[in-house]
Amino acid sequence: MTLQKQNLPELLPVPGFRLGTTSAGIKRPGRADLVVMALADGACCAAVFTRNAFCAAPVTVARESLAKGQPSYFVINTGNANAGTGEQGIRDARQCCESLAQHAGCSSAAVLPFSTGVIGEPLPVEKICAAMPAAMANLDENGWAAAADGILTTDTVPKGTSRQVRIGGETITITGIAKGSGMIRPDMATMLAFIATDACIEPGALQQCLSVAVEQSFNRITVDGDTSTNDACVLVATAASPLSVLQQGSEDYKTFSEAVTGVCIELAQAIVRDGEGATRFVTVVVEGGASSAECLQVAYTIAHSPLVKTALFAGDPNWGRILAAIGRAGLPDLDLEAVEIYLDNVCIVREGARAGDYTEAAGQQVMGLDELTIRVRLGRGSSWEMVWTCDLSYDYVRINAEYRT
Amino acid sequence: MTLQKQNLPELLPVPGFRLGTTSAGIKRPGRADLVVMALADGACCAAVFTRNAFCAAPVTVARESLAKGQPSYFVINTGNANAGTGEQGIRDARQCCESLAQHAGCSSAAVLPFSTGVIGEPLPVEKICAAMPAAMANLDENGWAAAADGILTTDTVPKGTSRQVRIGGETITITGIAKGSGMIRPDMATMLAFIATDACIEPGALQQCLSVAVEQSFNRITVDGDTSTNDACVLVATAASPLSVLQQGSEDYKTFSEAVTGVCIELAQAIVRDGEGATRFVTVVVEGGASSAECLQVAYTIAHSPLVKTALFAGDPNWGRILAAIGRAGLPDLDLEAVEIYLDNVCIVREGARAGDYTEAAGQQVMGLDELTIRVRLGRGSSWEMVWTCDLSYDYVRINAEYRT
Repeated sequence: MTLQKQNLPELLPVPGFRLGTTSAGIKRPGRADLVVMALADGACCAAVFTRNAFCAAPVTVARESLAKGQPSYFVINTGNANAGTGEQGIRDARQCCESLAQHAGCSSAAVLPFSTGVIGEPLPVEKICAAMPAAMANLDENGWAAAADGILTTDTVPKGTSRQVRIGGETITITGIAKGSGMIRPDMATMLAFIATDACIEPGALQQCLSVAVEQSFNRITVDGDTSTNDACVLVATAASPLSVLQQGSEDYKTFSEAVTGVCIELAQAIVRDGEGATRFVTVVVEGGASSAECLQVAYTIAHSPLVKTALFAGDPNWGRILAAIGRAGLPDLDLEAVEIYLDNVCIVREGARAGDYTEAAGQQVMGLDELTIRVRLGRGSSWEMVWTCDLSYDYVRINAEYRT
Repeated sequence: MTLQKQNLPELLPVPGFRLGTTSAGIKRPGRADLVVMALADGACCAAVFTRNAFCAAPVTVARESLAKGQPSYFVINTGNANAGTGEQGIRDARQCCESLAQHAGCSSAAVLPFSTGVIGEPLPVEKICAAMPAAMANLDENGWAAAADGILTTDTVPKGTSRQVRIGGETITITGIAKGSGMIRPDMATMLAFIATDACIEPGALQQCLSVAVEQSFNRITVDGDTSTNDACVLVATAASPLSVLQQGSEDYKTFSEAVTGVCIELAQAIVRDGEGATRFVTVVVEGGASSAECLQVAYTIAHSPLVKTALFAGDPNWGRILAAIGRAGLPDLDLEAVEIYLDNVCIVREGARAGDYTEAAGQQVMGLDELTIRVRLGRGSSWEMVWTCDLSYDYVRINAEYRT
């Protein structure tokens, strides 16, 4: 039993952004596992990376190169995270960039590396370098769908979305793809997400736009509470559109920014829907808090509770576990009498106890749904927050007990 | 597959402390689910309770009654936690105490109530009161083993231990029983533990002794990170021994205190060994920290990581997951190069990468053991901490997806 899989929608090409995918045989022969992305001259790039102290070698190298100037290429491999690989890992990531740079005739620093997969194994650099020409030969503005496949690890479906917005009489396209299924509790970005637009926008404004979008999307999801070593989310603006530069603070910028956030939310939710073993997609809303921080604290305590997650798997309205999670979230002076808990619109807890009008049948009906909302009202302020998560199933254990072996 | 079950050792009677167990038919007919404990005149009692803001009704009532004076009786039911039951829950807990008080001819405030089981269901007060005479009739200093059975919920084995220490020419006995298997991340005490001794000791010294013991035992274990609403740990000193009063700070007090801590550690470890679905008992040691707090932070991040726990279930030395957990534990300025990770005595990570002399075979050998230690050296100070946990198996999901339904 898994959540209904969504077909990959049509991914619209973004002028000035090409993608090439091939198989380097990293994990097994024939599987797409190497993706190259090429940015047109004049494109600019914003990025956010994991805050895990043990960040992977490619994250370190990409950060360094970005600080030197705008990139021209990305090289992404799956099947190996190049994390926990020390100095050798850094050398390996640089060598992949160097290999692509030689083929493309650019500097090595203009190539950003990204890796995802198993942690702690040496990166198979030779395989990657050997497959580089094939990936380069495939570069195409219509390469999104193949790339969405080529970056997956334990994911069961590719994830991508496109939007178009009309700004100043021009049609601006935003297309993004993402991968991620386990080790998902992004603390800056998801495992990997690549988003491109043909809009023209200054680096500072682009970074601001991405930071806002990530905060409301990838930073509001959790599958298992484990923050990856390789999280990265990149937004490229190719400036291929004739539209003039988007100015931060303008109405047009706002329209654009909201569209980017929309793309990120869709990708982030797709990651949760494809969470390892997930059978239910759950929105946790905490409102009436004294601050956003305490709302998030309660929301994540619920979203990470193994007991809540297994009750969700069972479709059992075992609200006592939600209540216990709220109680251990560490909020000072929490007034139990003021707390209310809802499953969708069914009130299950009021004044610290089961709501008088609650029936098990009503709770069961909501818990049987593929998608549902747990809503908590704290009754101590006007802040609110929302996070997305999934249940904890047999398959989560199976996938993670089998992975790597 | 579960950890090898330990037989309940002989539980030595403690003069001045009697236990009576019966079946009240709370969950199913015939199962022992009601326990009464009687304290001799002059006994004194120390207790610690859950810090979950949604503490159960019996916790509230027991705290209030303890504040009024020393108790004479405990009444403990399993099968129903009387938590999330609001004002009615408080009235129900009081009614159970009142029922026992009438049979015993004492005040209602001299009876402390304890409950464990499902959250949010009304307590079946009538069944409990009806069975009270039978429990009272069974009161016996040799009633420990029956009581150890009578307080269980999802536990698969009863848990208890006894120790004797020689102090001042006298033999002092300490016997304790505990229950707990899921919703285990005590933040003050375990689900339920009852310990008695025939030593004579002032209330303040007894409380100090219990607090120290709990901090080193029940507050160092986690099964699933979920803190219960009903945690309670009680230590009774009956003063039945001819030994004179133990003075806080004396050598004799120290001997006694260490024995109590030993009993608590044994009971706490027994809870982890019987953790829901547990197949491995894991000690997480974090040393070389700048403070105890940061050592605990890292230890619990590892112990709660679903990815580490499923790798433990699989017996897979997937050390990348341990490294990722350390990296996301939130330690400021963590020097990756200084971090070392060991499985028992096998060094797997040194200088931020796989140790040069590490072999997969050596890692696999340790991960195949029923009991193993994950040891992390942070290399930034001299503090250390140790917590005990278990793996995350299919059976954890099965038990918690089936429980209640």
